[in-house]
Amino acid sequence: MSEITGPSFFIGKGDEKLISFGSGQPDLPPPPQAFDVLKTYSSFKYGLVQGEESLRAALATQYPKAKSEQFVVTNGASEAIDLALRAIRLRLPKGAIGKVVLPRPYYYSYPHNVRLAGMVPVYYDLKKGKIDYDNFAKVVQGCAAVIINSPSNPTGTVQEVETLRKIEALCEKLGVYVLSDEVYKDIIYVRGNYLLKGSRVVTINSFSKTYAMCGLRVGYLYSQRKELVADVIEMKTHTAMNTSIVGQMMALAALSAPASYIAHNLEVWRSRRDLMVEGMTELGLELWSPEGAFYVFPKFGSSAGGSGKVVRDLYHRYGIITYDGAWFGAPGRVRFSYALDAGKIQEGLRRLQEFLGKEHKRR
Amino acid sequence: MSEITGPSFFIGKGDEKLISFGSGQPDLPPPPQAFDVLKTYSSFKYGLVQGEESLRAALATQYPKAKSEQFVVTNGASEAIDLALRAIRLRLPKGAIGKVVLPRPYYYSYPHNVRLAGMVPVYYDLKKGKIDYDNFAKVVQGCAAVIINSPSNPTGTVQEVETLRKIEALCEKLGVYVLSDEVYKDIIYVRGNYLLKGSRVVTINSFSKTYAMCGLRVGYLYSQRKELVADVIEMKTHTAMNTSIVGQMMALAALSAPASYIAHNLEVWRSRRDLMVEGMTELGLELWSPEGAFYVFPKFGSSAGGSGKVVRDLYHRYGIITYDGAWFGAPGRVRFSYALDAGKIQEGLRRLQEFLGKEHKRR
Repeated sequence: MSEITGPSFFIGKGDEKLISFGSGQPDLPPPPQAFDVLKTYSSFKYGLVQGEESLRAALATQYPKAKSEQFVVTNGASEAIDLALRAIRLRLPKGAIGKVVLPRPYYYSYPHNVRLAGMVPVYYDLKKGKIDYDNFAKVVQGCAAVIINSPSNPTGTVQEVETLRKIEALCEKLGVYVLSDEVYKDIIYVRGNYLLKGSRVVTINSFSKTYAMCGLRVGYLYSQRKELVADVIEMKTHTAMNTSIVGQMMALAALSAPASYIAHNLEVWRSRRDLMVEGMTELGLELWSPEGAFYVFPKFGSSAGGSGKVVRDLYHRYGIITYDGAWFGAPGRVRFSYALDAGKIQEGLRRLQEFLGKEHKRR
Repeated sequence: MSEITGPSFFIGKGDEKLISFGSGQPDLPPPPQAFDVLKTYSSFKYGLVQGEESLRAALATQYPKAKSEQFVVTNGASEAIDLALRAIRLRLPKGAIGKVVLPRPYYYSYPHNVRLAGMVPVYYDLKKGKIDYDNFAKVVQGCAAVIINSPSNPTGTVQEVETLRKIEALCEKLGVYVLSDEVYKDIIYVRGNYLLKGSRVVTINSFSKTYAMCGLRVGYLYSQRKELVADVIEMKTHTAMNTSIVGQMMALAALSAPASYIAHNLEVWRSRRDLMVEGMTELGLELWSPEGAFYVFPKFGSSAGGSGKVVRDLYHRYGIITYDGAWFGAPGRVRFSYALDAGKIQEGLRRLQEFLGKEHKRR
């Protein structure tokens, strides 16, 4: 059996007996509109590298004063982050290191994205999942870019609007790029989304979470910075060309779903969150209250043998997929996604209880 | 009107009055099987980052002794090249420059791909579109990788099997990676395809040309080098995740098309090639005989004011899209794609004659 070294071990794995708290993949289906377009679909030619005008125009209506030419449609948010970072790297002064500020815990891809773009990640620690502005302000000096991710994967926390405003102002003053990864913007339990704004802000978003279209890989970036948008298009011409045109048409159709689609899903996420938080609290696990996205990130005592061992034991002995906090810069914690139905959540909690009981007894 | 600075100016542009000898986009449709799967398509979840097992297994049957785990399905050949180069860069000794050998003329993205991966392109000149082995052998010393592209975009030439065998042996001996971009392997007029082989060979291919699925962006790489395949999958987990699953299912269905689909298309390409070569020769243009792909790459005398001016004049005054040879490292030449029907080719040639006549008179 191959070793569990990271999320790629689990991604795309399916097995009826497994309870997967692993991947951040909504199980709720996309709006039917997304599939309806396939019945008569017939296009196959290259599209604009920037993305179909119709889709970008529809996206522009969702952002105040935005224009379609400020968007680039990408292979999911992942490619948007990859290209945005590479575009920032491209214009660094010769010899500059290019430091990029990341919160810790971070989404597991961020440090890889930064390094793969030829830059260097620097970190500040979140306090109970929240940004401490003073910490942030210290580390951002002399950096090329920061990544903000609110709601956060893996912490499930949402940043305070006041903090986000101070970050906006500081980065604008310092001329630092802000990559605002807002892929969970439609899954917030405590307030509406706060869109980060500024001349160097690059908003990253996707159809994966809001419209449950993970496997179709349609995301986008939005920025008022012409130069960055042009650089991203130029790069994408060489590294990927247009994002799948059939995916783009499905995304456009998804946007025509009624608002009730998103509202309904939010209520499902909320009830599952309550189930998870209640269950885990009863099991005596310490966790931050999840304010958005669909993750809880409990701490496991060192008696369990470290979070890596917890993940291995849960998978091999209890048939539960979870993600090691170490992959997110938080060893000792384990990420549980609650993108699965209530019945499975309950079965998963039952297995977890069994695991915790046995571990307890052994000591 | 914005300036014509590269192919991205034209990609995805459509206009009935224009004659496009521009983009390398087959106008012949994909096999109907590719669209049939859409009628009942309903998947939306993440797939394996490496690509769907069913598609990789089907691809493996097309290569002698290949296994499905040796393939990674990508967002077109472009992403395969991007990821392969970044993977090679990843394992370079610290401080190494990472030189990558390119033929000149080259496909316009190659130098960008090399630089975007943090490496440095070095060139050798083709002789009448053919690799001169001695030239190649000199420049390859001390390099990390080479890109071979036979049939070639933009030259339309096919490399001699004897030369390719010598290149294989030399690169194997030197431990140099060979990226063999074989996206035109099913469009060769002079012989069957010669698959480059070796422990460091990375075969790049795509559904774009053989199956006319450019806009759907499904390509792949195939390599016997486990370490490289693993590195590519790990990177793709962070930069894009799985290739669009609906695109992959269309690709799998395309593979079930009868062999007559490819054979028929080849005959169409051949007859268009003959039309182009005959027409251009009559117009007195100097060109290499196109042995594969669907491009001719004639030289324009300096009397026409340089290939950049030719491209601008043809576009603005005669409604013809062509690509400047300078974008391919060959200023003075202009690339004509013949991926358009015979009637349009004839109209295009008529406009070209008018252009050449007027230019002639002016001097």
